[in-house]
Amino acid sequence: MSMALRIAAEGKGATFPNPAVGAIIAKNRRIIGCGYHPKAGFPHAEIYALQQAGTQAKNATLFITLEPCCHYGKTPPCVSAIINAGIKNVSIATADPNPIIHKQGIAALINAGITVTCGILEQEAQFLNRDYFTFHMKKRPYVRMKFAMTLDGKIASSQKKSKWLSTEQTRYFTHRLRALSDAILVGSQTIIHDNPQLDVRINRKHEHLFYRIILDPLLETPPASNLFKVPLPVLLFAQHALNKNNKICYPENCEIIPLPVKNNLFDLHSIMNTLHKKNIQSILVEGGAATISNFLEKNLADELYVIISPHIMGGSASLNFAAFLKERLLDSMISLSLQKIFTINKDIIIQYTNTLFSKNSMQSDRG
Amino acid sequence: MSMALRIAAEGKGATFPNPAVGAIIAKNRRIIGCGYHPKAGFPHAEIYALQQAGTQAKNATLFITLEPCCHYGKTPPCVSAIINAGIKNVSIATADPNPIIHKQGIAALINAGITVTCGILEQEAQFLNRDYFTFHMKKRPYVRMKFAMTLDGKIASSQKKSKWLSTEQTRYFTHRLRALSDAILVGSQTIIHDNPQLDVRINRKHEHLFYRIILDPLLETPPASNLFKVPLPVLLFAQHALNKNNKICYPENCEIIPLPVKNNLFDLHSIMNTLHKKNIQSILVEGGAATISNFLEKNLADELYVIISPHIMGGSASLNFAAFLKERLLDSMISLSLQKIFTINKDIIIQYTNTLFSKNSMQSDRG
Repeated sequence: MSMALRIAAEGKGATFPNPAVGAIIAKNRRIIGCGYHPKAGFPHAEIYALQQAGTQAKNATLFITLEPCCHYGKTPPCVSAIINAGIKNVSIATADPNPIIHKQGIAALINAGITVTCGILEQEAQFLNRDYFTFHMKKRPYVRMKFAMTLDGKIASSQKKSKWLSTEQTRYFTHRLRALSDAILVGSQTIIHDNPQLDVRINRKHEHLFYRIILDPLLETPPASNLFKVPLPVLLFAQHALNKNNKICYPENCEIIPLPVKNNLFDLHSIMNTLHKKNIQSILVEGGAATISNFLEKNLADELYVIISPHIMGGSASLNFAAFLKERLLDSMISLSLQKIFTINKDIIIQYTNTLFSKNSMQSDRG
Repeated sequence: MSMALRIAAEGKGATFPNPAVGAIIAKNRRIIGCGYHPKAGFPHAEIYALQQAGTQAKNATLFITLEPCCHYGKTPPCVSAIINAGIKNVSIATADPNPIIHKQGIAALINAGITVTCGILEQEAQFLNRDYFTFHMKKRPYVRMKFAMTLDGKIASSQKKSKWLSTEQTRYFTHRLRALSDAILVGSQTIIHDNPQLDVRINRKHEHLFYRIILDPLLETPPASNLFKVPLPVLLFAQHALNKNNKICYPENCEIIPLPVKNNLFDLHSIMNTLHKKNIQSILVEGGAATISNFLEKNLADELYVIISPHIMGGSASLNFAAFLKERLLDSMISLSLQKIFTINKDIIIQYTNTLFSKNSMQSDRG
């Protein structure tokens, strides 16, 4: 199964809206077929593995990282192909959280007389597709956050300056993170101060629509901002659909979504709900201290990429990334699960996940 | 020379007040002798290498990580031994900063007709003995700082609580750092709140006097504190040698040193000066935010060990380690040089050095 997981990872980032899946067929202690799902519309992992095994598939064992599908989507159901090939045993890492498949694929295999085991390396299989699982299980996108800070946690000086980190390599890293997600989210202040394009300028594996999301309570985003010049859709959340001058003058690729504001903050759960309906499975939050703190406060940060530059800024007016987060008592601090550390030049990059979504403690869906 | 440096490191931590030194003797592309200085009072590295080489040392080349001594200390001068053995070439990584040797050892070799080259891997050799070089070149102890913080830079909650990090492994790490230094320095608040023993409870390599230093402007340290019960000297810096009740009731192992205070802070340069006179080559600062910020403000932190626990505390009243440091503009932030990262359980340990004392940019003493 661990080999099937490694094969599955080949498709990672290219299979939207499908998850990354790997399959291995074994018989008499030999591997006779293997495959992974490369892209939506292409055959699923099982089909490639069955094709490779051919007539030898009869009475063989299939290892698959996710429950096989039982419905006609862009491709015919894999369950029928498995049954028709004469597979005797199926080992599945985890059930599919998508309601149109969930446990019906397993049931169909059992009804056909196939022996099914489920749950081997389940946490690892769910972690691989944490975007997909979060989207279907929690009915909201998976939230990645990325920010660069000094050692003392500052993301900007008291003059709102933050341009101390901009080597070629860290820019590449940012674009790689963007390519992993279906949307970028920032606050309007980031647009006003930095005027970024918010696009992905390295090779993207997936080709589906990439959204830019702006949280802009007072509709202050200038319509001439650089991000509108990139031909990708913008979702602009604002308190009112009209700006101060009562004019709507935003470009065509901008959709304004009105939403109530409380203490100058949107209810993030409403935003998550809207994004879920738009089929956005994952977002990358590149916001400032207010946005970051709001996501942390609401326990909506699933994964953090923290870039620590080798500097100390000091001062009490400079901006800590968690400046707007209410102080937690020692035993109720936000707990993260350390996944990975590496360096780019003299910067340290740390990948944390929310402890609920770590490889070691992800909640399972076992019935 | 890089081999000589590796051999020298064997003595690291045990040679006080001497530096760690390694020596290699080569002849006809063969190594015929090598040695390192294990401990003060024992022979120096060169002597071990010469003993091993015996009569073959004649016309051989000696590689040594530090200028050889030319004076009678606990052992006779190495320069005479080198000359008497008939060594033809000597390659020295760096001159000795100790004024009783500085460049006189090199001069004596040259006067004896030996070819001397100096400066190969000089920065690495100075970095290995950065305590010793700082002590002699800057006339003050080398300052290590160690603190544990949350990801957002907090070392204590607003209620001054900080006990979120206390696994067996991190305690071992703290004691290893203490064993590297000649003294620990804390503020009186640490004694009052935590009442620590401030001793080294793992095998220490060196056996010389280990000081505990307390910065206590108002002489508030309770005479019954745990640290006085350990039979090691305490240096108590206070504004006045008498406490509020006009009674001196401190134990015998405590020396009270009166020093003026400004804004509730001592002048750290005066303290460094006092410690230099007491022959303390290196200290480990384990203080709170005020002490850490003061050392950073005065550019007196040579090396930082930062433990990042996987937590976010938030809040504006919780204590950032650099809370009392004046805000620096972006181009004048404190710059650190990343040396090493590792993890202990889920904690990240980062070793930084002051850029002036990094392996790559240490100021040299070349004449």
